[in-house]
Parts: sequence; structure tokens; C-alpha cells
Amino acid sequence: MSDALQVAIEPTRDEHLAAAVQSVGARIVGLGEARILVWIGPPSEFPDLPDHVEWVALKTAGIEDFVTAGVIDNRRIWTNASGFYAENVAEHALALLLAGLRQINSAVLRHWDKQPIDTAVRSLHSSTVAIIGAGGIAASLIPRLTASGARVIAVNRSGRPVDGAAVTLPSARTDEVWGQTDHVVLAAPATAETHHLINAKSLATLPAHAWVVNVARGPLVDQNALVAALRDGQIAGAALDVTDPEPPADDDPLWSLPNVIITPHVANPASGLTRVMAPFLAENLRRFAAGEILLSVVEPGRDY
Amino acid sequence: MSDALQVAIEPTRDEHLAAAVQSVGARIVGLGEARILVWIGPPSEFPDLPDHVEWVALKTAGIEDFVTAGVIDNRRIWTNASGFYAENVAEHALALLLAGLRQINSAVLRHWDKQPIDTAVRSLHSSTVAIIGAGGIAASLIPRLTASGARVIAVNRSGRPVDGAAVTLPSARTDEVWGQTDHVVLAAPATAETHHLINAKSLATLPAHAWVVNVARGPLVDQNALVAALRDGQIAGAALDVTDPEPPADDDPLWSLPNVIITPHVANPASGLTRVMAPFLAENLRRFAAGEILLSVVEPGRDY
Repeated sequence: MSDALQVAIEPTRDEHLAAAVQSVGARIVGLGEARILVWIGPPSEFPDLPDHVEWVALKTAGIEDFVTAGVIDNRRIWTNASGFYAENVAEHALALLLAGLRQINSAVLRHWDKQPIDTAVRSLHSSTVAIIGAGGIAASLIPRLTASGARVIAVNRSGRPVDGAAVTLPSARTDEVWGQTDHVVLAAPATAETHHLINAKSLATLPAHAWVVNVARGPLVDQNALVAALRDGQIAGAALDVTDPEPPADDDPLWSLPNVIITPHVANPASGLTRVMAPFLAENLRRFAAGEILLSVVEPGRDY
Repeated sequence: MSDALQVAIEPTRDEHLAAAVQSVGARIVGLGEARILVWIGPPSEFPDLPDHVEWVALKTAGIEDFVTAGVIDNRRIWTNASGFYAENVAEHALALLLAGLRQINSAVLRHWDKQPIDTAVRSLHSSTVAIIGAGGIAASLIPRLTASGARVIAVNRSGRPVDGAAVTLPSARTDEVWGQTDHVVLAAPATAETHHLINAKSLATLPAHAWVVNVARGPLVDQNALVAALRDGQIAGAALDVTDPEPPADDDPLWSLPNVIITPHVANPASGLTRVMAPFLAENLRRFAAGEILLSVVEPGRDY
């Protein structure tokens, strides 16, 4: 790139993104000279944009807060990080599901309590796992699950068959899933349609050995119904990276149930975002320079 | 099978194995009439065998105790369950590795302690995992690891390339592994050669972010050296399904280290053995009736 692209990384410098910019021969400049802004701060600190900024790259997958803050305009290209972190979230979902099935939580809490743990261990292989919201995370999760010997039921909006899934259902038929699956992974955006998707009725239909994994958003689960189902043994357990509210209150019964695993919203660790984003930024800079379509362009009117 | 095979299941009846016998049209009889004995008891209770018993099927993968007790003769075929439980053990190894990398243990113990957990989470994808003892467990584990985006270094006796591994090394070159891998999974039998394979020297060579997973046997690890390395932060953590001794003493420092996950030797749950064994028994009965070579025939002189 002889005519170096001018890129601002704001509001703080970041070594991973700086290396990505330099790796494609672009040049790091201040906002006053930039054609491209890589914004890694919060919406509240977002600057007034000079007209010469043609593309703003945001580091998060969900950009609800930027939409709400009104910073996204239609005078340039905006990209988010949708899909960049799918491998990470898929890996965490697999870790949570296996931790539940293999009783890692009981082992951590109870020490060599062999008999009850031995009889409670379940296998992922030969089981069926339903993924609700079969997008980028599911695309990364399905090969992991099938390599682990599980069969996958995917649920997406259209019902268009998902690669690697044994069955794909449209979201309008989600209620058919509960009686056909061993376990559930929630990976859908939080919308009116997905609100309390896991509720008293779905929990009552799931098998007693089911684990429910949530790496999406807390409101997909009716948490009171979940607590009741976990207490009554309607399902085997829940492994949650997200809750509602987040974190749960100190006296939330979730904390004291033995069949719950809670990780503090770290499926995609905030501390590692820019490291994971860096190669995608480099690819998008290459595409920008070549006049190609960028990855993860924000579609106006879609806020997730 | 019109001329039904006569099979004894001793010393107790087992529903899974009985169903397997019946599924191939064989008949369950007492030992006095049996051509085949399926023995699911301990070596100490092993009966005197009538000459008409042509094949004894044992339910464990390791049969050291039967060899030591002198019950294995050369007057008939003996099979063990070598390889039958590989999927289970591989799944547990993956669960332990992911639980460590994704900080499930810290989350279980500390609750929503977001900042330290967020920064401690590591990814299996884009990492290198060495499997020491690349036999049946590795054959099941490698596809799970590669589907999770990891690169595998396999170590076996011969150094003959292992399917799916990026690199295979002979066990004589094991010491080269520690500096080339991110994480280690131990899946080798306990022998003089593998005794204290993980020791002060290998621990000092592994990277500081390394997790060591043991689903093999406790004596492969010099536990005092491991405790010292975990205390000093020489490695990130250890996830152990086996220990030395087993279980660790109540005052063993392993129990109190935050970067240790211990499961009580449940990679292959004892309570589920016959359920997992059942389809293999059915297949072997079919082979026996057809005069084919059986799965997992015990080779005289090999005691693992």
C-alpha cells in the first residue's frame, strides 16, 4: 500500500489493533487526519466526526448502546464485530455444557465425593443438543458438538437448513424442540420473540437430565421459573454466562443451587476483545483499500 | 442365530448386558452351561472355569488386577474393554481442559468476580495441545480438539504419525514437547517409563499459561513438583481426574490451590460401565458366532 491509509485508534492506543494497522501498511494518525476511525471506547465518549472519516469500526458485536446514543449516522460506513467473537463464545458454551455434564461444579465444591458424582456424570456423546438462535456462534459450535459425538437441532428464523445440524427448525416451531432434545444452548439475540423462551412450560417439557446453557442474554430465561425447575429436579442443571439482572443479587437463589454454574459474562472476555478483533480489522483494512465489501457492516435498522 | 450361544453374566445380573445378549439372539444361562462368561465382578471372586467356557469378557480396560490374581489362563480367549471407554475419557479430558481455560472453577468458587476471571480466561482455539500416550483416548480426543480450533502434538511409543495430529513424536523424544505446547493431556499407561513424566523439569519448561490435564494414572505426575509449580505460577493450572495417592489426603495442598480442578476418577464413570460396554459385547457376540476376530482380545504379556 504505497498511498497509506490513515487510521485513528481512539480514545486509547491498543497494541493489538496498532499492530494490525501496521501489518497491512496503513498509518496510525489522529482523528483530524483519519479516513478510518477504530473506536474502542464507550458511546458516551464518542467524538464529533469530521467528514473525512469514511468508515468507523466498532469493537463490540452488540451495538445497541451506540444506536441508543444516536452516534451512528448514514454518512459513512459503520462496522461492528458481529461474528468476530463466535469462536470464543462457542468455546465457552461447550465448556459450560461439558462442565455441567461431567459434574465439574460438584467436584470443585465437594471434593472427592465419588459415588454421587460418578452416578451424576452424563455424556455429551450420543446426546442431542438444541441450539436456539443458529447464527455465527452456532456455526462455530456445531462442529465442536458433532466432533464430540452429539447430534444437533438448530433453530433459526427461516428454518433454512444449517450446516452440520441434523435438523433445522424455524423459530416459529421452537416449542417442538423441548421434547426432542437432551440439552439446550441459547445463542439468540434478546428480542420480544426470544423473551422468556425458557419458561415454566419449556422447562416442564425438557427431560430431567437436561442442562440449559445460556451464552446469549439473560432475559431469554424466566429466571424464577428456572430456579423452580432446578429446585424440583425438572431439569438437571443450568450453566449461565448471562443472567437477569446481571450480576444476580447477592441473595438470588441461583447462587445457592448446587446444579447451577455461573460464569460472570466472560464467554467473550472484555480483556481480550482487541486481540481477537485485530486480524479481522487487518482483513477489513485490506478490503477497504481494495474497494471490496467489508466484513460486519452495520445494517441500518438492525440493532443487534 | 438358530443355535443360540449360551452366555453367563456373573456374578450379578446386569440389565444392559442382558439386553445386549438378547439383542443378538444369544441365551443367558448359568456358568455350568456357558460357552461364554461375561465377568463383571472383582478378581477376588473369579470362579473356577469349566472347560466349556471358550471366551471370558471382562468389563475393565485395565486388567492388571486380574493378571496379578492369576485368573487369566491360555486355555480360552480373554477380552477386556480396551478402547470401549475412550469416548468417555476423551470427553472428560476435554471438559477438564476447557473448565480450566474458561475458569469454570474460579467462577464456581468465587461467584461474579468478573475482572480477575475475565483476564484469566484463555482459549483452546488457536492453542497447541500435546497428548502424551496417543492411543484410543487420543483417537477420540484429537477430533474434538481440532474441531475446537486447537493443534495437536501426539506422543506415542513408535512415533508413527497419528491421524489428525499436526506432529507425532516417539516417546523417547517426550522432553521436546514441553517447550512447544500450550497445554498437556496425559493419556498414557502407568509404566516405569511414564513414572513422574510431569516433574520439576518439565513443569519449568512448560509455558506459564499451561494447563496440565491427567486422565491417565496419578503416578505419571510428581505431585510435589506439581504443587510447587502451581504455587509459584510456573504453570496456570492442573485438572486431575486421577491423583497419587487416590484420593489425596485431606491435608493435601492440592485441595486448597485455586488453580486445581479435581474430579474423583470419574472420566469413565463406574456406574455407567455396563451401559457403555453393552453395544461392544453385542458386536463381539456377533463376531464370535461368525467365527471372526473379537474386539479387544487380551494379548498375553501385556497387562494394560
